[in-house]
Order: sequence, then structure tokens, then C-alpha cells
Amino acid sequence: MLLHLSTWQEIEAYLQRSRGVIIPIGSTEQHGPTGLIGTDFICAEAIAQGIGKELDALIASTLTIGTAEHHMGFPGTISLKPSTLALVIKDYVHSLAKHGFQHFFFINGHGGNIAVLKTAFTEIHTELPNVHCYLGNWWMSAAIHKLVQELYGDKEGSHATPSEVAVTMYVYPDAIKSAPLSEYVNKDRKIYAPQEFRERYPDGRMGSDPSLATVEHGRQLYELAIKEIGRQ
Amino acid sequence: MLLHLSTWQEIEAYLQRSRGVIIPIGSTEQHGPTGLIGTDFICAEAIAQGIGKELDALIASTLTIGTAEHHMGFPGTISLKPSTLALVIKDYVHSLAKHGFQHFFFINGHGGNIAVLKTAFTEIHTELPNVHCYLGNWWMSAAIHKLVQELYGDKEGSHATPSEVAVTMYVYPDAIKSAPLSEYVNKDRKIYAPQEFRERYPDGRMGSDPSLATVEHGRQLYELAIKEIGRQ
Amino acid sequence: MLLHLSTWQEIEAYLQRSRGVIIPIGSTEQHGPTGLIGTDFICAEAIAQGIGKELDALIASTLTIGTAEHHMGFPGTISLKPSTLALVIKDYVHSLAKHGFQHFFFINGHGGNIAVLKTAFTEIHTELPNVHCYLGNWWMSAAIHKLVQELYGDKEGSHATPSEVAVTMYVYPDAIKSAPLSEYVNKDRKIYAPQEFRERYPDGRMGSDPSLATVEHGRQLYELAIKEIGRQ
Amino acid sequence: MLLHLSTWQEIEAYLQRSRGVIIPIGSTEQHGPTGLIGTDFICAEAIAQGIGKELDALIASTLTIGTAEHHMGFPGTISLKPSTLALVIKDYVHSLAKHGFQHFFFINGHGGNIAVLKTAFTEIHTELPNVHCYLGNWWMSAAIHKLVQELYGDKEGSHATPSEVAVTMYVYPDAIKSAPLSEYVNKDRKIYAPQEFRERYPDGRMGSDPSLATVEHGRQLYELAIKEIGRQ
Amino acid sequence: MLLHLSTWQEIEAYLQRSRGVIIPIGSTEQHGPTGLIGTDFICAEAIAQGIGKELDALIASTLTIGTAEHHMGFPGTISLKPSTLALVIKDYVHSLAKHGFQHFFFINGHGGNIAVLKTAFTEIHTELPNVHCYLGNWWMSAAIHKLVQELYGDKEGSHATPSEVAVTMYVYPDAIKSAPLSEYVNKDRKIYAPQEFRERYPDGRMGSDPSLATVEHGRQLYELAIKEIGRQ
Amino acid sequence: MLLHLSTWQEIEAYLQRSRGVIIPIGSTEQHGPTGLIGTDFICAEAIAQGIGKELDALIASTLTIGTAEHHMGFPGTISLKPSTLALVIKDYVHSLAKHGFQHFFFINGHGGNIAVLKTAFTEIHTELPNVHCYLGNWWMSAAIHKLVQELYGDKEGSHATPSEVAVTMYVYPDAIKSAPLSEYVNKDRKIYAPQEFRERYPDGRMGSDPSLATVEHGRQLYELAIKEIGRQ
Repeated sequence: MLLHLSTWQEIEAYLQRSRGVIIPIGSTEQHGPTGLIGTDFICAEAIAQGIGKELDALIASTLTIGTAEHHMGFPGTISLKPSTLALVIKDYVHSLAKHGFQHFFFINGHGGNIAVLKTAFTEIHTELPNVHCYLGNWWMSAAIHKLVQELYGDKEGSHATPSEVAVTMYVYPDAIKSAPLSEYVNKDRKIYAPQEFRERYPDGRMGSDPSLATVEHGRQLYELAIKEIGRQ
Repeated sequence: MLLHLSTWQEIEAYLQRSRGVIIPIGSTEQHGPTGLIGTDFICAEAIAQGIGKELDALIASTLTIGTAEHHMGFPGTISLKPSTLALVIKDYVHSLAKHGFQHFFFINGHGGNIAVLKTAFTEIHTELPNVHCYLGNWWMSAAIHKLVQELYGDKEGSHATPSEVAVTMYVYPDAIKSAPLSEYVNKDRKIYAPQEFRERYPDGRMGSDPSLATVEHGRQLYELAIKEIGRQ
Repeated sequence: MLLHLSTWQEIEAYLQRSRGVIIPIGSTEQHGPTGLIGTDFICAEAIAQGIGKELDALIASTLTIGTAEHHMGFPGTISLKPSTLALVIKDYVHSLAKHGFQHFFFINGHGGNIAVLKTAFTEIHTELPNVHCYLGNWWMSAAIHKLVQELYGDKEGSHATPSEVAVTMYVYPDAIKSAPLSEYVNKDRKIYAPQEFRERYPDGRMGSDPSLATVEHGRQLYELAIKEIGRQ
Repeated sequence: MLLHLSTWQEIEAYLQRSRGVIIPIGSTEQHGPTGLIGTDFICAEAIAQGIGKELDALIASTLTIGTAEHHMGFPGTISLKPSTLALVIKDYVHSLAKHGFQHFFFINGHGGNIAVLKTAFTEIHTELPNVHCYLGNWWMSAAIHKLVQELYGDKEGSHATPSEVAVTMYVYPDAIKSAPLSEYVNKDRKIYAPQEFRERYPDGRMGSDPSLATVEHGRQLYELAIKEIGRQ
Repeated sequence: MLLHLSTWQEIEAYLQRSRGVIIPIGSTEQHGPTGLIGTDFICAEAIAQGIGKELDALIASTLTIGTAEHHMGFPGTISLKPSTLALVIKDYVHSLAKHGFQHFFFINGHGGNIAVLKTAFTEIHTELPNVHCYLGNWWMSAAIHKLVQELYGDKEGSHATPSEVAVTMYVYPDAIKSAPLSEYVNKDRKIYAPQEFRERYPDGRMGSDPSLATVEHGRQLYELAIKEIGRQ
Repeated sequence: MLLHLSTWQEIEAYLQRSRGVIIPIGSTEQHGPTGLIGTDFICAEAIAQGIGKELDALIASTLTIGTAEHHMGFPGTISLKPSTLALVIKDYVHSLAKHGFQHFFFINGHGGNIAVLKTAFTEIHTELPNVHCYLGNWWMSAAIHKLVQELYGDKEGSHATPSEVAVTMYVYPDAIKSAPLSEYVNKDRKIYAPQEFRERYPDGRMGSDPSLATVEHGRQLYELAIKEIGRQ
């Protein structure tokens, strides 16, 4: 059940049977030469909608823009300051809490959002003692790690990974890209600022080989993520 | 060309030929017993994408949540404070301006966003003297007004209107709703707070009769809006 | 009845008979070679005080500084950021609401304040459900438009207009200025940043010919505005 | 020379001979049964304008609303939060600094503004190293203290004082009020919250006897303040 | 070398040989019936100073107050909002960066600070591209985990742990407390609000048995932490 | 009784007999060639702890960083913006007020904090009507002034004074510094920005001769301050 394709009377009825809502959150940021800029929110949204169908749960609007400061060296990236994103999350939860929602499950597709979500949750839990916020990062579970390891080994890397690219290939098969990758770059030290990032990783990948991704992998990851997160 | 289905290298290439980008913005709020909660952003997004195809222009991520305080009496409505929404718009434009974008065309689907967009533009134009922001409210043009008048006369009303419902019926034919409407309520005085709104307009419509909407009307309005706004 | 020339006991007595208050708001910004920098608040204040006398209503302190970013290319202009002005309006209304005021009529003299007032009202109406804020722009009524059209036709323009200059001539006859105007400039495209504004309109006027203004016009406009706004 | 009755070209000319500007700041707050609500800004404005004439200096718009939280128990009082007032002062100074002003003399009429002005100055001096802000509290000088002591002795008190009331009587002789004063209350301990204030000082005076004030005293204080502050 | 016991000339000299500084950060919050309220910053400060001696590095002022919202049900706890703490961290780093410091090593003693530190770092790295911030949580290393496991097994728990209590016993042997512990409570579900926390864990411990702590354990943990973090 | 060396149960017991708490606040800023960077908080903390012992009162965590913008020209100085420091003070007081504390005595060691403390107090007293905040600047009392005058006359100056240096010598005898002082500089005009400060006072002293300070003076000042402030 999708919030934006429902009427308010349908939501009123839903609240009779559940106080929970699922919120996909991702990022709009470069994902290497072949990864879609929307990768992070596309994965989160698809998996959230899959879980929603499975559990007959409400899925609210996707937060498509996250905090992506260190990708700002690449065109197309959009980033909210952490303080702005925290305000958005707070206004979002406060709005739905006024209607009676109490359990907010964020399905997240972007590592850079985790700290911001946690600080926002801290403020929300203080302001709204009856509300509980939960964070599910779709790529973080033992089962997903195991599958990724089998499929890609150490070519998974940590940005523009074959696993996330595979999920987007499965979701948007018409938007599969092909482009030459620059020489393979090991991920071997921390990066702090956009310029540093682009100098170190000139095509935007961090230790990953997204050319290994396939639509079939995407399907497997998508289905496993739904099973894993849905269980929580 | 959709930002989220592009790669950063495609955006880099696009910037060689254009410095403009189109941004749909709407709201997530009640639209009466038969209107979708996503109506405002669905209309803005569909029309923006239509214009994008027409003009071969880039369409960035839709801002699906606007300022909808006075609809908060109805479940499902999500509202950002005006100050939060202004920060989001500013971070959004600043991000793309860093990559070289200069012209930002917001296609808006929600009256309650207009003042916030204007205040954000004022701050942006001061901070970024080379940037120009433009606001196009899809329903505000002489031609659209004329068509709406012909189709619905004074049953158009001012919220949950047949014209916006018609556009969503055209875009999402699988999500057409049917529900009884409460007795017709004339729109005859200003509303200030959520409680007042719901007492005055118990099913969320303001002087409108959305049962007049049809998919075919939606197509006409959609095509006319694209022609009208695209011309600007 | 002027707030600043009253005692608190007089205000306590006033609250027995009325919960309404009128607040003039304008701007401190350039108004061409012959217009006073205070034009916008002088007009709003004079008209508000006229209405106050007519209706025996309370007039509170004038907000003399508004949002005037795009006039910052001309010395003497003072501008509050939209976010600052919104905070001022909110603190102002919250203060008087604590004393029992419920109806706040802002008489505005500056177009650039409109969006800010509206965003502030949105936040106020959410925070204070019993409060109602109203916006009256003195120059916006069919009757005023008609009179202005008769007096100045298309030489009215849109900044440093003869109509507003005429009102200030009537209010401050000792401060009537005379100075050469630069060549007439049609107002023909949008302006976004201070530098652009000054390049395009070197003496600060936008399509206006304030040399047409007279004290007698000022009197007519002043009296008509009082009649029109007072009726609301 | 008053900013609001000048044109921008007159300000441009003024900047050729001076980089200084005088800014009156006061408060809109109760001043006992016979004191005007505008007392603090009326005094500051009158004295500032007197100094302006003496020194041929520019006087900018009066800040009529200050921080007056502990007077909020009395109707008519308007208070800006300290944080809001600091933003106003910062935007004000930044605006005029862009035009080339460097020396900002605030003539203050309200004790409650002092700490806020100082914190705003600290931020301004860091942000604008070439700008210097000065604070002149009109009632704080050895000569004024001496005159006040001669005129009123320990009946001066610390709020709604005969000295400030006398200045407003001199400035607005048509607005002189008369009302019974409640029994005399010594000022003998600190006050923290509005309710406490009103309980302790039921008619709003703090240890003062404003019935001693005369128009002639007002003239003497006004002239002495101009001489004293002008000398700085 | 301690910043607060140095002169500015000693810091000027230090900057000739190093651009790095160590900053202890903790919390002021309840730590069960026998744990000190300052436990988190006491551990961080002691370990930071130990590393400072080892590496002849500068130790700046300890941030003694962190974000501790969910401990607010117990008296003595002080908590900064995440947004306030982030501003403190930003002002702190910006100040030292103006003097030429580039590497900021935060030694942290409180889990609740981690997300806030990370969001602050994101903003700092964007604003100051030459600055690098690092986070070292003293209790997070394989060697520390191993030692803790040997000493306490599953009685370590996750708040008011014997390991942190042991470190404070070693640092402040004169402040060792003894008090009866309430019945042992397993840590078995998430906690969101202060009231929930206190109901679930009435004496403030989360699955821990701090009575196992000894001064000698404290010495071992302190020395191991210095060795582990110092190596990074 | 020190908050950080207490348990929450000890604080709970303390609240049975007192609702008051003492909070030392200082600054981390240059204090000339021989003064410690921590001078201001070291003095405040030592005196506060002395008073605490005298009166058996609770001393909470020292705020070691204040607003020190105009000392930022000297390495080692750390400054919080006034707005940040005000937020810290507010969160601090709000936290302890939730536990039942009502009287907050700030012992301050730095002149630059005074205005910020006062603005924060204004907001706190409005938000928490039952709370009372008090400010004690240890160096401001007739008795201290008299002793300082006897010891140093006009060599006391106004920054890096012999009196504050003497107190730190008494508290940290192991950290007594010696360094050549630059030529004596009279304090003769106001300073606004860091650069101006350093140019005018190249070694950081303002009209002071800290070489006059002795440990014995420190003891006298420390004891007198405890007696004076404790009496309030």
C-alpha cells in the first residue's frame, strides 16, 4: 500500500489495524561510470515496496536526497547538509505521528545517511516518547554479506558496488548503462573532502567492479533483502 | 532525461549543451475522498517529465513533500515547516550550482509551496548571483484556466479539484478511486488552522466536485500544461 | 489609537472591546532619485493610522525594515534575510497573542515582504490555532488600480512608482525631492541579483515616472486606500 | 539627516564625507500606569535625532522592538527573543556595511537590550573586521546621573523612571497621561519571570515615582544627553 | 602537553613540529548505583592524556558533556541536543584550524556521541577541505574486546559496564563507590525514551555487573587502550 | 561535592536537601606570554570548588570554552560563537531543571561570557518560570578590587592580569611559566577584531604586568573570592 496512491480515508482505515509505516531513504549521487545517480534510493524504494507487499504495510514517500557531501566532486550529485536532512526527518515523523503512527521503519540505501538518521532519531525519541524509529540498511545482514561475497568477493568494494548496481538493473532494466571503467583502484585510505575523493577515485568507484553485476544477481539480492529486513 | 536514471558522466556531457534543469515539486497531502495523497507531486512530476521530453531537458528528483500545515487534520498528510522546506530548496540548488547549473525551473503542483519557494529564491539569488530560479505553477495560465472553466465551471473549487484529480487519473489509471462525497460545501471564507479546516470542510474538498474528472480530461490538461509551461 | 503612545492599562481596557490590532510593515530601500528610502513603510504607516482613526482600532509599531535583497546595489537600502524577518513577525505576533490579541491585520507597503509574511503566517497558524493573520497590500485593490491607471497609465511602472511617491509627498510635504531622472527604462525582464538590478535600472526606477506624482494625487490615493482596506 | 527621508543618491553623497551612522534602539513595553509603551524607543530616537542635527550625522531607522521578556505580564509589551534581535542587528549592520558604512553608533533606550547588542557586536566584529560598533545608553553618564539624582533622588527607581517619562513628555506633550499609582514599592530583589514581576510590581513600576516628571525636566535631560553622548 | 596548562607561545612552537591535536570527549550521565556520573569523560580524558604523553602530542580541553537524552530519567545527567553538540564540535575545530591545526583526533568515551561526531565531521570536511577529523572510541578494538571478554564475559553489558567503571577506579581511587545493585537485568530490547529506559533498567545498568570491576583491571584496560589507539 | 565524581543516587539524595547547583564557566584563550591558556576556567573552577566545600554545595561540570573571538589572533585560543554558547547554557540548565534543580549559580572567569550568559538567562527565565540563574564574576567585588589595587595598582590591566595569573599559580604551582614580556603597553582604546588586537597588543597582555603575580597573592585572592561570592 503506497501512501501517495492512497486517499486519506484509506489511511484512516489503515490506522485501525496498524500504527507502523515504512519509509525508504536514499541519496542522489554519482555511482561511477555505469551506476545510476539514483541508485541508493532506487534500491531502498524497491526493497521497501517489496516488503510492503509481503507484509501488507504502508510505504510512505521516498526521501530521494540524502547527505552526500563527499561525492560533490561529480556532477549530478545533490546533497542536503546533515542539519537539513535531520530537520526533514523530524518534520516527516512529527507529521505522521500527529495522525497516530508510532513505528517508523526507515529502509536506507546510503551509508552517509546513517549518522544523520541516528541523531534525528535521538531528538525524535525525546520529543515524542511514544514513537519508535528503526533503521534498516538493506545491504547490512549476514545473509546479504554472504551472497555478495559469493558473487563478487573483494570486487564488491564500497561505493558503486556491483550489488547495488545489480539491484537497479533488475528494477530499471531499460536504464542499464555501459561505459569504460578506469583502471581498478583499491580502497585503501580514508577520504574527507570532495576534491580528495575525485583525485583518489577519478571515475567515482571505490574498490568496486560494477561490470560484474547482472539482472539476475539483482533479482537474488532484491528477494533476499526483502526476506531479511522483513523478518526484523 | 531523468537525473536519477543517468550517470554522472551523462550529466557532465549534458552540461556542455545546457545549464538548465527542471525540478518538480508538490506535496503529500489529503485530496478529498477520491483524490490521491500524492496528487500535487504526481501532477508536477508528470508535467515536468513531459516538458523534459519535449525540450530534451534534464529533470531532477521530485520534491514530494511540501508545506501542507492546514491539511494536517487529515491522516496521511505530511508537512515540512516552511523554514525546513526553504533549507531543502537552498541545499538542492546550491548542490547543482556547484556543478555548473545556472537556470532552475521549478514546476510546482501545490499552492502552499509558492511563498516558501519565493523566500528561498530571494536567499539563493543573493548568495549565488549567477543563478536564476523560476517558478511555474502548472495550473496557472490563461489557457489552463479557460479549459478548466469549460470543463467544470464553478465546480472546480480550490482544493481536491476535478482538474488535478483528472491529471492523476490519466497518469495512474490503476489508482482511480471512488468514494461517496459529503454534501457540497461552498468555499466561502479563509481557513487558518488544521482543526478549522476539517470542521469547515469535513471530507477535505474546498468547493470542488472531483467526481466530474475523467481520464480524457486529464490527458487534455496534461498536454495543455506541457505546451503552456514549455513555452515560457 | 497608537500602541507606542498608550499605557499598558489603556491596552488592557482596549482588549475588553476588541481582539484586533493593525500592524504596518514596509521596507527601507532605494526608491529612485526622488523617492524616499522610507517610502514603503511611510505609506503603510500613514494608511494604517488613517484606518485606525476611522475604525477606532489599535495600531502597533511599524516594521520599518523588510526583505529588500535585490535593492542592495543602492546605498541606504537595509534588508533583513527572509528567515530573520519571519522570526521577527513570529515573535511580534506571539507577544501580542499572549496578551489576548487574536486578529492581526498587516498593512503592507512592499511587494518583497509578501512571501515572507505568508510563510510566517503558516507557522503562526499552526503554533497558535486561535490566531488569524491577514495581509492587506495597500496598492492592491481594483479601485486603487483604477485610480492609478487614470493618473499614470503605463508610467506607473513597478518600483519607485508615482503612486507611492505621491503618498509620501502628501505625508511628508517637507521632504519632497527633485533630481534628474535617467532615461526612461521599460520594465521588461526579471531581475534576480542586486548587481543585475543596478545594471539594468541604473537610477533604481523600474518602468516608472515618479515625476508625475503630486501631493494632491497622494491625498486621493491615501484616502482611497483607507476606504478600500478598511472595508475588508 | 534621516535615512528614511533621504534618497539613495543623498546617501551616496553622504558616504563621501562620512562612514558613520547612528541607530536608535529601544523597546515596546509597559512603563507603568502613566508611562508610554514606546518610552524606550521614543527617548532613544529623540536623542539620536538631536545628536544627528548637532553633528550633521545620518540617523537610520529606529529599532522599536527590543528584548522585554520580563515585562510580558503586562498587555501591550512586545518582545523579540534575544536570538531574533541579534539576527536583526546583524542583518542591519551587514546591509549598511555593504554600502561602505564602518562606524555604527547605537543609541539605546532599554537596559534589556545591552547584552543582546554586545553578543551581536561580537559576531559582527568577527565577520566584518573593518566594522566598529559602539553602544551608547543615553541614561548612563556621570552628568545624567547627577541631574537625575538632583531631580528625583531615590524616587528615580529602575523602571518607568521619572527621567525617561519626563523625556517622553517633552517629546510628545500631547500624549501625557495621568493615572493613579499603586502604593510605592521598593525595588529590593531580582526578578526572573514575567509572572514574578507582575506579582511583585503590580502596576509595572520598579521603585520609581514617575509623577515627579515634568516637561521641563524632559527638556533638560534631552539636552544633556545629546551633549554627553555627542561628545563620545 | 595540555593545552590549558600551556601558553600561546608554547602552542605556536608546537605548531612548528605538528599539526595534530587530541580532543577527549565524553558525557555527564548516570552510570548505575556505583558508576561515576563523569565516567565517560573521565575515561576519555585519562586515555587521551596517556596517549599524549606517549606521543608527545597536544591534548586540548575535554568536552565533558555529550548527548545523553535516554539517560535523562536519572538525576545528574546533563545532555546537549545533538544539534547543539554538533555546533560545539564545529566551533571548536574551526577555532583551532584558524591557528593551523589540520588533524583532529577525538578520543571518545560515549556511544551516544558517535553519530553526532560523524555528522559534525561531514560538515567540517566540506567547510574546511584541508582538515581531517578522526574518531577513536577507546573501548572499540579487538584487543580491548578480548580483554573485556576474559575479565567479565557476558557480565560486561552495555552501560555502566565493569570495564569503564574499572578505568575510573584506577583514575580516581578516592572516589570508588559502593552501593547495592538491583536484581540483574538482561539487556534484551531497544530503548527509545528516558521513561522507558528507567522502567526497564531501574538502577541504570544495562546488562552489566560493575561489581566485578577492580583498580587493577582499570590499569590493564587503561594501558591497553593507550597502546591500541596510539597505534592508529 | 562534585557532580562528575558522584553517582545518580547521591544526586537524588542531594536534591532532598537543596535545589541549587554551582557551575564554573571560563574560557580557553591566550593570556599573554606567561599566563595559561586555561586561566579563566581554572580560576572559576578552583573558586567554585572552594565555595562548594564551604557550603557543602554541588559543583557541576566546568564549561571550559567560552566566547573569545577577539583573542583568536593567538594560537591555542578556542572560541564558541555567542549563539552556540547560549545553546550550551540552555541545554545544560534545561537538563538539570528536569531533575528538579531550580537555582543555578554560574561562577564566571571571563568577561567575554557575561553578555552571552545574560541573553541565555533571559531565554531560560521565559521558558522555565521556576528557575533562577545567577551570575558571579569572581573578580568583581569591592573587596577583590581593593586587594588587587593594593597588590598591583594600575599594573593590573584588563587581560592577562597579575591577579588571575596569581590564582592559577596557586592552583597549578607546577605549571608556572616564565617568559620575557614585550614592552609595556597601556590599554587606551577599544579593540574590535582579532587582527586589531594582536597588532595593538603583540604579546596578548592588555595594560597588565603579570610578572608581579606570586603564589601567595593567588592564595589571598582565592580565599577572598570564596568568601565574597559565597556570601551572595
